[in-house]
Amino acid sequence: MNYSLKNLPERTQKPRQIGFTMAMDKGLSPREVEDFIAVSGDYVDIVKLGWATSYVTPNLKEKIKIYKEAGIPTYLGGTLFEAFVVRDQFDDYRKVLDKFGLTFAEVSDGSIELDHDVKCHFISKLSEQVTVLSEVGSKDAEKIIPPYKWIRLMQAELDAGAWKVIGEAREGGNVGLFRATGEVRSGLVEEILTKIPFEKIIWEAPQKAQQVWFIKLLGANVNLGNIAPNEIIPLETLRLGLRGDTFDYFLNVENIK
Amino acid sequence: MNYSLKNLPERTQKPRQIGFTMAMDKGLSPREVEDFIAVSGDYVDIVKLGWATSYVTPNLKEKIKIYKEAGIPTYLGGTLFEAFVVRDQFDDYRKVLDKFGLTFAEVSDGSIELDHDVKCHFISKLSEQVTVLSEVGSKDAEKIIPPYKWIRLMQAELDAGAWKVIGEAREGGNVGLFRATGEVRSGLVEEILTKIPFEKIIWEAPQKAQQVWFIKLLGANVNLGNIAPNEIIPLETLRLGLRGDTFDYFLNVENIK
Amino acid sequence: MNYSLKNLPERTQKPRQIGFTMAMDKGLSPREVEDFIAVSGDYVDIVKLGWATSYVTPNLKEKIKIYKEAGIPTYLGGTLFEAFVVRDQFDDYRKVLDKFGLTFAEVSDGSIELDHDVKCHFISKLSEQVTVLSEVGSKDAEKIIPPYKWIRLMQAELDAGAWKVIGEAREGGNVGLFRATGEVRSGLVEEILTKIPFEKIIWEAPQKAQQVWFIKLLGANVNLGNIAPNEIIPLETLRLGLRGDTFDYFLNVENIK
Repeated sequence: MNYSLKNLPERTQKPRQIGFTMAMDKGLSPREVEDFIAVSGDYVDIVKLGWATSYVTPNLKEKIKIYKEAGIPTYLGGTLFEAFVVRDQFDDYRKVLDKFGLTFAEVSDGSIELDHDVKCHFISKLSEQVTVLSEVGSKDAEKIIPPYKWIRLMQAELDAGAWKVIGEAREGGNVGLFRATGEVRSGLVEEILTKIPFEKIIWEAPQKAQQVWFIKLLGANVNLGNIAPNEIIPLETLRLGLRGDTFDYFLNVENIK
Repeated sequence: MNYSLKNLPERTQKPRQIGFTMAMDKGLSPREVEDFIAVSGDYVDIVKLGWATSYVTPNLKEKIKIYKEAGIPTYLGGTLFEAFVVRDQFDDYRKVLDKFGLTFAEVSDGSIELDHDVKCHFISKLSEQVTVLSEVGSKDAEKIIPPYKWIRLMQAELDAGAWKVIGEAREGGNVGLFRATGEVRSGLVEEILTKIPFEKIIWEAPQKAQQVWFIKLLGANVNLGNIAPNEIIPLETLRLGLRGDTFDYFLNVENIK
Repeated sequence: MNYSLKNLPERTQKPRQIGFTMAMDKGLSPREVEDFIAVSGDYVDIVKLGWATSYVTPNLKEKIKIYKEAGIPTYLGGTLFEAFVVRDQFDDYRKVLDKFGLTFAEVSDGSIELDHDVKCHFISKLSEQVTVLSEVGSKDAEKIIPPYKWIRLMQAELDAGAWKVIGEAREGGNVGLFRATGEVRSGLVEEILTKIPFEKIIWEAPQKAQQVWFIKLLGANVNLGNIAPNEIIPLETLRLGLRGDTFDYFLNVENIK
């Protein structure tokens, strides 16, 4: 750090199991990736190439290579997995992972109907090839999944081989874990945590108010995802109580353990 | 493309008459322009240097040159045309186009009162020098133009020599084609299309929900404008049904023709 | 300028006492700083490294140096000052300013309770070392300070040695000078200006509607702050009446003096 401040919450270091940050790249150029890493490389644990942006992004190999050389794995958004599955091209999807040397993949059903056993089968199959992140929650604001079912789905997906499960929010932060207004479904989150271990969940929280909410509930080292590249530094200050929103919270010595 | 997916809508290729995307640059540096082109060059058909930002942007010649070498023409925002006209400096405006080697220009009356015959005269005059885009719709949220009048204005401007007409929305997407909330005036759009050919119109649609609305109404190859540079890749995935919002729509084989 | 337009408001030039623009950098990379300066260097008078982002930003010395070589001083956000003070580390804070060769500092109490005499003491103490900007207004939306008190606080801080006082708005523009909706507390601003000289105040105004409001009230050369790097060029056009929002306003010859 550039200078020393007393009594800050302790942040985990790479490789992180908790205090993990997943960023979403929705079309950076290779040089922009370099800039992103120059600033935020130490704070980003994994990068998602958002939904199916990888299909239309030039220089894909080059980008993945730049991230890799900085020690940051990348993976393709869950919507792309779904686009292959719905077209009966799962084997092609597996070849794409190999072609680009990817070591992580996401399995989701945010835009398609997928029998849960089939979803778990895909998780199981892919986990032989790569580390799997699986995502729970619909991208459809109309589909409200009750808490007990979130828990059942998450547990089954971890049992099927998922490394961590992701709570859905989209880029906008207005579905799944959140109401259409962006407000957190707090009862849902608290109930999930009675059953699923803290370190096994990555909460998508693209909006600042959502990040603040999770940090105040779960501490500096909560796993958060769908963070925009230029919001990684701001998020890091929230985690440390060095921005107005969490400043008071971390002055309480109880909260910095 | 980086890999192959079946049954995607077919996108037009450059030079495009339909499926056309106009991006808005409101002050990129020359190096940022290079980054923008590296990622989105194939998907951007023309770049507007937003409103009168060209007045205060350094390196203007250099920027225009970088775009030009990538095969992307640029033009100066309509507000600048109006700023010259309202000061009785139309001839100076024509010299500016020459000085910067521009081959496109926009004629609009979003911020000034302009008799429509006079506006058409400017279109006609400028079309001897450059390719003219003309814009219909006020920047003033209070001025509601009824559909029959949008049609009459658009037709007269095409007759006067405009290459295409633009439906106004501003950078914010909250006037002209849209209500103050950003919602599309859908009856207006549908009525316009009964009279003015699809390929002759560029719809300003800076917000994602607006882009989705136009794509679902008019297909993958609708002409869209006022797209922010970092939203070109996301828009391209919307056009292809590779983002949640249009995923279902393009699974219907009827919609991918 | 790239071309000539008649009857524009006259803008002040560097070094500016009025018409001053403070930008907020919340984590640009060194190369992004170069890009920012290449476009907006002439229009930015000072850069704030937002709140305590400097704590987690790599390459801090390098960034400060790039700004300095472009003639743009930088300072550390007020929240960082408060983080040191609340930890009883004021002397450490003074050393940080020296270590990084900073010539400006901000004194604020947006996130902590600080007796006003103590705040003025810090202003006085720091003004022996650097040029002090002091900020009035809470980051807490619940704390409404009445106008007479804003005036008393501002005057006392200027008397204690502050070079200019800043009206608080945060990055979001939704506290202090503004209601939670972002609307300006206009009575407050007008009353402040009956007592505190125009040139002594920097108004934080991150949102476009707020910038427009201040420009229409106070003219092209109002001092504005918390401007995002990519909004400096757009702001400059607002100041000149070259964007729709202030176009009409500056056509009135009364307003361009």
